[in-house]
Amino acid sequence: MVDQQGRKNVSLVELDRFCRSVLVACGANDTTADAVTRAMMHGTRHGVDSHGVRLLDHYVRVLEGGRIKKAPEMKVVNAFGAIETLDAGDGHGALATYTAMDHAVALAGKFGIGAVGIRNSSHFGPAGAYSMEAARRGYIGFTFCNSDSFVRLHGGAQRFHGTNPIAVAVPSAQENPWLLDMATSAIPFNRVLLYRSTGTELPQAVASDASGIDTRDAEAVDMLAPLGGEFGFKGAGLAGLAEILSAVVTGMRLSFDIPGMMSQDMATPRGLGAFVLAIKPDAFGDQATFDAGMMRYLEVLRNSPTREGQRVMAPGDREWAVAAEREKNGVVIDPATREAFSALGQKYGVTLQG
Amino acid sequence: MVDQQGRKNVSLVELDRFCRSVLVACGANDTTADAVTRAMMHGTRHGVDSHGVRLLDHYVRVLEGGRIKKAPEMKVVNAFGAIETLDAGDGHGALATYTAMDHAVALAGKFGIGAVGIRNSSHFGPAGAYSMEAARRGYIGFTFCNSDSFVRLHGGAQRFHGTNPIAVAVPSAQENPWLLDMATSAIPFNRVLLYRSTGTELPQAVASDASGIDTRDAEAVDMLAPLGGEFGFKGAGLAGLAEILSAVVTGMRLSFDIPGMMSQDMATPRGLGAFVLAIKPDAFGDQATFDAGMMRYLEVLRNSPTREGQRVMAPGDREWAVAAEREKNGVVIDPATREAFSALGQKYGVTLQG
Repeated sequence: MVDQQGRKNVSLVELDRFCRSVLVACGANDTTADAVTRAMMHGTRHGVDSHGVRLLDHYVRVLEGGRIKKAPEMKVVNAFGAIETLDAGDGHGALATYTAMDHAVALAGKFGIGAVGIRNSSHFGPAGAYSMEAARRGYIGFTFCNSDSFVRLHGGAQRFHGTNPIAVAVPSAQENPWLLDMATSAIPFNRVLLYRSTGTELPQAVASDASGIDTRDAEAVDMLAPLGGEFGFKGAGLAGLAEILSAVVTGMRLSFDIPGMMSQDMATPRGLGAFVLAIKPDAFGDQATFDAGMMRYLEVLRNSPTREGQRVMAPGDREWAVAAEREKNGVVIDPATREAFSALGQKYGVTLQG
Repeated sequence: MVDQQGRKNVSLVELDRFCRSVLVACGANDTTADAVTRAMMHGTRHGVDSHGVRLLDHYVRVLEGGRIKKAPEMKVVNAFGAIETLDAGDGHGALATYTAMDHAVALAGKFGIGAVGIRNSSHFGPAGAYSMEAARRGYIGFTFCNSDSFVRLHGGAQRFHGTNPIAVAVPSAQENPWLLDMATSAIPFNRVLLYRSTGTELPQAVASDASGIDTRDAEAVDMLAPLGGEFGFKGAGLAGLAEILSAVVTGMRLSFDIPGMMSQDMATPRGLGAFVLAIKPDAFGDQATFDAGMMRYLEVLRNSPTREGQRVMAPGDREWAVAAEREKNGVVIDPATREAFSALGQKYGVTLQG
């Protein structure tokens, strides 16, 4: 399939194979290559391209540089009832977080609920990927992390929290999970990048210049506003929740102490924390009641009257629609990523077909 | 103390005594009178007046009418590891939720984390009151509930979710807890009422008329927008999270199936659910690391540079300031509430001093 610019689509299967092969060729162990590929493919499959395969080049650089360990030792350093603390040994955040969610689900299977704090981790990509793993197994999954500062406080004039995402997935018997995967900023930075490239004005009060003053000029953006506009204390509070669970509970770095992901230092681990939680819905009652409740909730939601020219969707519906389309047609790789893939392919002797 | 309109302040101690006495006199059992008073006083003490003592009159009506049981039987109907389901027996939501949080904290003491789903409950007032109870004992507390529909979906044109609050409190060693207590709507309905009484225009895109169209005319407001403006799917998603935990997990009524709190039917229980969760922070590591992390986080936050004419506060800071002032000076009771108190006092032979 060739688009109007003459760019070919690449199938998701081929992208998965390419990423996996490059990661293995660069020396990542199998569990790391698998986890990193799955996380990136979650992003690319569901249209979250910022957290998709475009990250491969960056991940290979930090794996080669030693910032992220190619064969980390991950171990449970604390266990108490239904909770654990997992030390990720400076391995990849995707492996750390999939592992932690595995443990949280196992704990929830035993205790109805389970939570795992993650220490010495790294950038984990799309938060929704890990919550989805819980939902696929019939559990409600929560994923939190903090990240280097990029969002001002409500009333604040400097970068404070990261975009600190919160992702929750809820299983639904007959269909895809309910999936909320949200940054706690008013707008994603990718939207700013998009508006830069198209020269469009930003919405009001979603981003600020370097002195904290609101700007609608995408070029002038130095920090994002917290979600909520006049009630931005809510977005900042939700960012704080992600911060406290990911960094304070785990004893890891606060957002304003985390070196930037794009820092030139490819050798020093960034000391990230994260936090996952799983709930077994049928521990509270019976599965049939839960399933019927979700079905009725989603049915009424999807059939609600809409505002003119708008539509209503359950959290995740947009993602499943993109996934269905991309599974059928594949995906167009942006020029910068294609160029990086070409260099990676040459270096590691792997060819991207298509 | 007499204000400029000649209205006297009433001390918090006296308000507490009055509410408690009226509730007992109307026949509520001691545990109900205590829980309801504590919850309302949390609201009044911290400046959340919509969820403060103004509710006393309403609560007495529904207790007298039988919609809420004066001496409910609350029992654990499901227990599995670190979770429980509490049937509140159509008792008051404050008693149900304090009881549930007690259980969640006990479970977290044993398992590191604990959650309790609440069935057959009723309006519980300020969500933060229950999370605070966990924080006072050194636990992170979460409280969720749904409520009758009043907030449209993102893109939606009718009332769908309730204002579905999420409250989280985190203990902080040397000071008041970190306390986020937020409705998932763009604006609280009280703000709309305030703007009605002052004839002020609402901010953009926070409320809609009966056909779902945005309005800045407070008089025309029929529903609220979800938190997030252009990214209102986030607020709607958070409302959905509160809905799923409170109503789907517990098998209780979805927001659009809940009769309005102000319905004329004072006899029929409304079938509300709610959900609480407690986490023991030192189960993940040591208490000193957690305390030091919270202290540094709050210190850097409170000393952050501010936007011109604005300030930064940690979640809860506004509340503690109001509480300190009201503990010292007491509080002015609004005329409608004072009138209701006068009638209640006469009916039950209790006099409000001051």
